[in-house]
Amino acid sequence: MKSYKDLSREELLQLHARLEEEYKDAKSKGLKLDMSRGKPAPSQLDVEMDIMDVMTSSSDYKTETGMDCRNYGIVDGIPEAKKLMAEMMGVADANNVIVCGNASLTIMYDTISRSMTHGVLGSTPWCKLDKVKFLCPSPGYDRHFSITEHFGIEMIIVPMTPQGPDMDMVEELVSTDSAVKGIWCVPKYSNPQGYSYSDETIRRFAALKPAAEDFRIFWDNAYAIHHLYDDVQDVILDIISECEKAGNPNMVYEFASTSKVSFPGAGIAAIASSKENLDDMLKSMTMQTIGYDKINQMRHVRYFKNLGGLTEHMKKHANIMRPKFETVLKILESELGGLGIAQWTMPKGGYFISLDAMDGCAKKIVAKCKEAGVVLTGAGATFPYGNDPKDSNIRIAPTFPSLEELTEAANLFVLCVKLVSAESLLQSYSN
Amino acid sequence: MKSYKDLSREELLQLHARLEEEYKDAKSKGLKLDMSRGKPAPSQLDVEMDIMDVMTSSSDYKTETGMDCRNYGIVDGIPEAKKLMAEMMGVADANNVIVCGNASLTIMYDTISRSMTHGVLGSTPWCKLDKVKFLCPSPGYDRHFSITEHFGIEMIIVPMTPQGPDMDMVEELVSTDSAVKGIWCVPKYSNPQGYSYSDETIRRFAALKPAAEDFRIFWDNAYAIHHLYDDVQDVILDIISECEKAGNPNMVYEFASTSKVSFPGAGIAAIASSKENLDDMLKSMTMQTIGYDKINQMRHVRYFKNLGGLTEHMKKHANIMRPKFETVLKILESELGGLGIAQWTMPKGGYFISLDAMDGCAKKIVAKCKEAGVVLTGAGATFPYGNDPKDSNIRIAPTFPSLEELTEAANLFVLCVKLVSAESLLQSYSN
Repeated sequence: MKSYKDLSREELLQLHARLEEEYKDAKSKGLKLDMSRGKPAPSQLDVEMDIMDVMTSSSDYKTETGMDCRNYGIVDGIPEAKKLMAEMMGVADANNVIVCGNASLTIMYDTISRSMTHGVLGSTPWCKLDKVKFLCPSPGYDRHFSITEHFGIEMIIVPMTPQGPDMDMVEELVSTDSAVKGIWCVPKYSNPQGYSYSDETIRRFAALKPAAEDFRIFWDNAYAIHHLYDDVQDVILDIISECEKAGNPNMVYEFASTSKVSFPGAGIAAIASSKENLDDMLKSMTMQTIGYDKINQMRHVRYFKNLGGLTEHMKKHANIMRPKFETVLKILESELGGLGIAQWTMPKGGYFISLDAMDGCAKKIVAKCKEAGVVLTGAGATFPYGNDPKDSNIRIAPTFPSLEELTEAANLFVLCVKLVSAESLLQSYSN
Repeated sequence: MKSYKDLSREELLQLHARLEEEYKDAKSKGLKLDMSRGKPAPSQLDVEMDIMDVMTSSSDYKTETGMDCRNYGIVDGIPEAKKLMAEMMGVADANNVIVCGNASLTIMYDTISRSMTHGVLGSTPWCKLDKVKFLCPSPGYDRHFSITEHFGIEMIIVPMTPQGPDMDMVEELVSTDSAVKGIWCVPKYSNPQGYSYSDETIRRFAALKPAAEDFRIFWDNAYAIHHLYDDVQDVILDIISECEKAGNPNMVYEFASTSKVSFPGAGIAAIASSKENLDDMLKSMTMQTIGYDKINQMRHVRYFKNLGGLTEHMKKHANIMRPKFETVLKILESELGGLGIAQWTMPKGGYFISLDAMDGCAKKIVAKCKEAGVVLTGAGATFPYGNDPKDSNIRIAPTFPSLEELTEAANLFVLCVKLVSAESLLQSYSN
């Protein structure tokens, strides 16, 4: 296929007319599909239903230390859940883990909120400072950016590379600007690109020399065990150990949850960090709760048992998700390959495919899709303030629709990419 | 029995010597009992075990509006859980309710925290103010006071009466001091006295004219359905409706949970307020979570069904708790009645009995009990900053120990009250 950029104005006009016809046809189908969020499909939720039979009226509700899971107590999580979550996150020592409620997002939000009101390990509360800044590797996770925006924290875009964030820029900003208090990271199968940080990137993170004593890396290890393939899997270094080795034991908070392992609505979430950080955090947590849901923690432990159990279980998810990713990638390749109008990632795990359209085209493509009944993540959502400076990045979430729906949605999507790109090129002719 | 205050020095000396002997004997028993917290007994937790069989692998996980409880979504709680919690709280309209995770304490903490960082309905964030004050009807719930202390909020003691807080003082402070932003209330079977606010008290609350536009009543309806008796039950007015009627719809947040209905570790909690307040709150909540544990919400709805189901269920708890309350009250009456050294409350619900010893005696009594193996709530804990100005109030939590243990503990307790009182009176003789 000839690159669009090599087409004459005449050829482009003909192409555009043909694409418009195709689009009209597509619209008339009255699709109603949602590719907007990283949501497991109903069929994925069905594979873990046995977990609901693990804690019944006749079960033992005692933890390994003899505490009754049903009653008050244990603010930092039952010991066996700490072990499970440590294994899942790849954290060496379960004592570095606190297990909370059903959402890692809540732990992240609460961590920022606590830093605002109480500071970090005795530092000035961030709400008392004139300016607080966060580095935001982008494209990234919109809900991270929403939290920092909500607290009035200034967000600075750091470009992403296939090896992770641009570390030259990270090192420069972190070491020179004491207003920089944090950075959002999804180190494995990143949202939305599916990139995993290289060993070098992670070692450079661990070796950062922050200007601010209360600078923290917010390490959202959301997809730690969310592989698509058995044979090709990304492995990343344990940031907790690396920070310890580098003499920066307090510099990182790591987050994870079973939202996409058991249930998005009813999993368990955890934070891992140094003992000093966790103790600091517990000062607030013991005010905030007498204890998170320990029965649900026990339910997860009894069902998954250990990393082996988790890994086996995640293969069931992969078997459902892999064909969906492959379907989208195949359609992207066959329909957009060689046209010079889009680039996309080919992740080996996680929940997303990231596509970069021609500059200035993302919003129009997403709008065209919506007009024809396919909802994508809002263009710009993958950047701070919902503002993609190039208006180019689109996040594709292939998991929720069925394979049939997904095929229709992906076909409509590539059509919209072509149509908007042709329009854009025509406009540059007329300018 | 003669009042201790009518005893001569000689009689007191003899009495004291005898009590010292009794205390020595008691100490030698090597008791190890805990009457410190309002914790359900294991036998109480056993009565609700059937709830664990309600959501199994073969259950229907769709809400009444067709949402899948297992997946992401519904930040404000599933509709049927809103109805259940509204009924439990006595709130007329389920639209005034948001159902959250397992702890109302967390909702209260988060509400204060959000007011600190984001203000209330557009007001200046409290962290930007020089001074924020809360009124603390005392004796009250130590965990309330811990939250406000944690956020550096100045706490002002308001005396409690059997009809509720001293409303003259509340009206005066709330209407004249714009730094007063809130008041902690446990309106029904209050912690620790078991008092329920009178209709007049509640109407005066609803009619407050706060100097601060962001003043809020923090109405912790923790014991809404926690009656001890079938025939004598306290009923309180619905503060949400009363505030509406009085033209103050936004002035109150009401909190409740099923911690002492289903499980302290794994219940569901809710907040009720005006739509405007809830919408303000949701701006932060939608950043903090994609949704609370909806499977657990569904579990509670399917098991308890409605207020009727909750009420029937709570009778089982009452049947276990009532003999414990009666045992303690009988021992207090038979051992301390007429001695003029202590007064205590006789609650018809809730989780506590409150005893006022002679001034300056509470700490010593609690210490004596501890020395002999019985742990009570720390003296002073029922006042802001853990400081009871009269050092007189002691909270008795009779629910957790077995009836046999409780009898032993209560007998030791009254002995310690007598011993410390005799000592105190002897000292005043020598002064």
